[in-house]
Amino acid sequence: MSALVHTHAAILSIGDELVRGQTLDTNSRLISARLMDLGIETIEHATVGDDLDALVGAIRRLSSRAPLVVATGGLGPTDDDLTRDALAAVLGDQLVEDSDALAQLTERLRSRGRDVSAAQRMQALRPATARCLRNDFGTAPGLAARVRVDGGQADVFCLPGPPGELVPMWERSVVPLLRPQPGLTIRTRFIKLIGIPEAEAAARVPGIMARDANPQVGITASGGILTWRIRYRGTLAPDAAEAEVERVARRITDAMGEHVFAHGEVSLAAAVLDTLKARGQMLATVESCTGGLLGAQITAVPGSSAAFAGGFVTYTNALKQSQVGVREQTLAAHGAVSAACAREMAAGGLERSGADWCVSITGIAGPDGGSAEKPVGTVHVGLARRAGDGGPVEARRFLIPGRRDDVRERAAMSALAMLWFALRGGDPPARLLWEQ
Amino acid sequence: MSALVHTHAAILSIGDELVRGQTLDTNSRLISARLMDLGIETIEHATVGDDLDALVGAIRRLSSRAPLVVATGGLGPTDDDLTRDALAAVLGDQLVEDSDALAQLTERLRSRGRDVSAAQRMQALRPATARCLRNDFGTAPGLAARVRVDGGQADVFCLPGPPGELVPMWERSVVPLLRPQPGLTIRTRFIKLIGIPEAEAAARVPGIMARDANPQVGITASGGILTWRIRYRGTLAPDAAEAEVERVARRITDAMGEHVFAHGEVSLAAAVLDTLKARGQMLATVESCTGGLLGAQITAVPGSSAAFAGGFVTYTNALKQSQVGVREQTLAAHGAVSAACAREMAAGGLERSGADWCVSITGIAGPDGGSAEKPVGTVHVGLARRAGDGGPVEARRFLIPGRRDDVRERAAMSALAMLWFALRGGDPPARLLWEQ
Repeated sequence: MSALVHTHAAILSIGDELVRGQTLDTNSRLISARLMDLGIETIEHATVGDDLDALVGAIRRLSSRAPLVVATGGLGPTDDDLTRDALAAVLGDQLVEDSDALAQLTERLRSRGRDVSAAQRMQALRPATARCLRNDFGTAPGLAARVRVDGGQADVFCLPGPPGELVPMWERSVVPLLRPQPGLTIRTRFIKLIGIPEAEAAARVPGIMARDANPQVGITASGGILTWRIRYRGTLAPDAAEAEVERVARRITDAMGEHVFAHGEVSLAAAVLDTLKARGQMLATVESCTGGLLGAQITAVPGSSAAFAGGFVTYTNALKQSQVGVREQTLAAHGAVSAACAREMAAGGLERSGADWCVSITGIAGPDGGSAEKPVGTVHVGLARRAGDGGPVEARRFLIPGRRDDVRERAAMSALAMLWFALRGGDPPARLLWEQ
Repeated sequence: MSALVHTHAAILSIGDELVRGQTLDTNSRLISARLMDLGIETIEHATVGDDLDALVGAIRRLSSRAPLVVATGGLGPTDDDLTRDALAAVLGDQLVEDSDALAQLTERLRSRGRDVSAAQRMQALRPATARCLRNDFGTAPGLAARVRVDGGQADVFCLPGPPGELVPMWERSVVPLLRPQPGLTIRTRFIKLIGIPEAEAAARVPGIMARDANPQVGITASGGILTWRIRYRGTLAPDAAEAEVERVARRITDAMGEHVFAHGEVSLAAAVLDTLKARGQMLATVESCTGGLLGAQITAVPGSSAAFAGGFVTYTNALKQSQVGVREQTLAAHGAVSAACAREMAAGGLERSGADWCVSITGIAGPDGGSAEKPVGTVHVGLARRAGDGGPVEARRFLIPGRRDDVRERAAMSALAMLWFALRGGDPPARLLWEQ
């Protein structure tokens, strides 16, 4: 395909399981983030079910809104996979069998000792004017076509829903065909903060979010983290655009002070790990109500092994005693959800792991287990450090709103926040996140 | 509001961070799942950025498509929060200050020792013909209005983006106002499978996914799990509708045999825990490359403490030795990513936790650390059981495609799948998921 400039894009996710809320759509986010990296701005995501009319309507409408449409899902071998039929209807095409696609499908199944069933063979069909995109990680080829509608025309790419098939096909068969607008410069920057409310952060830089400004600035709060977004879009040369973004970023950074933990799309876990690596220190975790979630977040960061030793999931009281040496009398006197227990968990985890820092979490995630004295959402975070890093074992008490998943996510975030401010030295915020 | 029957719904998510792929939208899924429970079917999700024209266009369009529109996000105190302006534009209304909302906002901030800033005060504005919805967990009230557009009319609810504010407002202020279609019966059923490919599952029940059938049937593959969806929508009485769904469900269940692990929206972790609880047995985990992810998935299930003792995150070789007794010569001879190491991890975790079952994971999640002999994605899962449950410690080798996150998620899924088939007794599939 040629000539169409992809100034902006729209994304379509397809599937009853998505639109009805059974399955979370992660593809739209993935594709729009990658488009942004390439200088193509996504203006809309849409999700519709496995319904031919809805699919045809959505492909038509999005093709009139944006010169690039990326659809995911509905390409599989079963009767509820209707994307190729919908694309054919939009194009006014018949479906034809693609001999290369059939050959690849046959080869793929044969290598697994299987034959091509009638259902599997459907996947080699394509609208007559569309092209098949090779799938190296599954049976369903993708499709690429130029769609002409009243409002204009668009390059439409239909890709498989499973991310393990989608991503390689995206890299191999779509990215080389993308044509960002020549002369358009897009530069984005993210500044991430912990431990400051959204309104307070915004009030420190009045007027910065004017909607007609360029760079344009926005702010988002999510799970205890604030993210400033700075974005230049215009005709400045890349260096000049970068300087404009830098000017705004500096103003924000100066005003936010110690709350800034990252420039860029970096998690708080990654920022904590970077600090530890720079100091040549290791971290360990002792988790009760989060059950391994904090360790999972830490080890989601590539290269985490340089600063993360490991940890203990002490879900039962027996394992709190046997694994990290919490004393029976502490449990008897204060219970497992207490500052005393959190301190002993952190101190014991530090000793038994040989790490330099150890953070512990014990709490009541719910829905059951709460009491008047210790309601659901009560979480204690303990923090122990090697003698050289000074100070006794500390603990903070949080009262976290929300359901089980929220309490667990926020408990892990609170632990990382405590660690972040402890690693910085200086005074932490007097009241951190959901601290009581 | 009165009279409008909410036969179906559309959902709008608002935010630059969502449409550009910085943040994953989880609200649309949440709302559509809850609507489905109430018998209201969602026909579309749309996501647009913090752009007044895009917002106005989306609210208008969705109001012409569905009699119920639920929007989330863009209600905060900062200049990029434009939902109330967009709703006012659609309604042709001025913004007016809501005295109750202002009083509540003032009270909320005062209880935290803060005054109402000019930015905060903006949140008490509403379009003249809209109503404010009380927010008990944040500063931004929601909005409710009746929108009339060319294609029809819709009840539009604008709710805050943070799930901790959204969910309580949904329950308290929106659910009581919803009016599902009288006489319409919707019944849904999910059947979840592990260890069978999608095409093979579909081939066992030919014709069941005919698009004009009622109950309608669909199937989805995600992360190793297959889900059959059965859905009746029509005028049958609830009992008769239930019987129809049951008839189809039985046909599928009979054909799927030992691969069925749940009827309903139950995770494989929850199914494993239920089996353990029924046997009065406890599980422990020993995780290396997943870093706690398996423990986090298990403890995401409410009540998991009845069958989950805890575990060990043995990220370094030193902790593999000290925490669960992996032998130095095993690491020297085979490396940490080996069947021998996985077996010793499982056996050591079983012994030190006192649990009845212990599952271990060791592998190379990438992006670095791979070799020709052990490429990225190589994962060994070990499984040990108390002597009474028979058999030696087993281990299986998987070669998992995808990026770091995929490998970790699928490694945890593989461990749960091994555990599932081991708990069932009988023969597990000869080749399980990504097994080599």
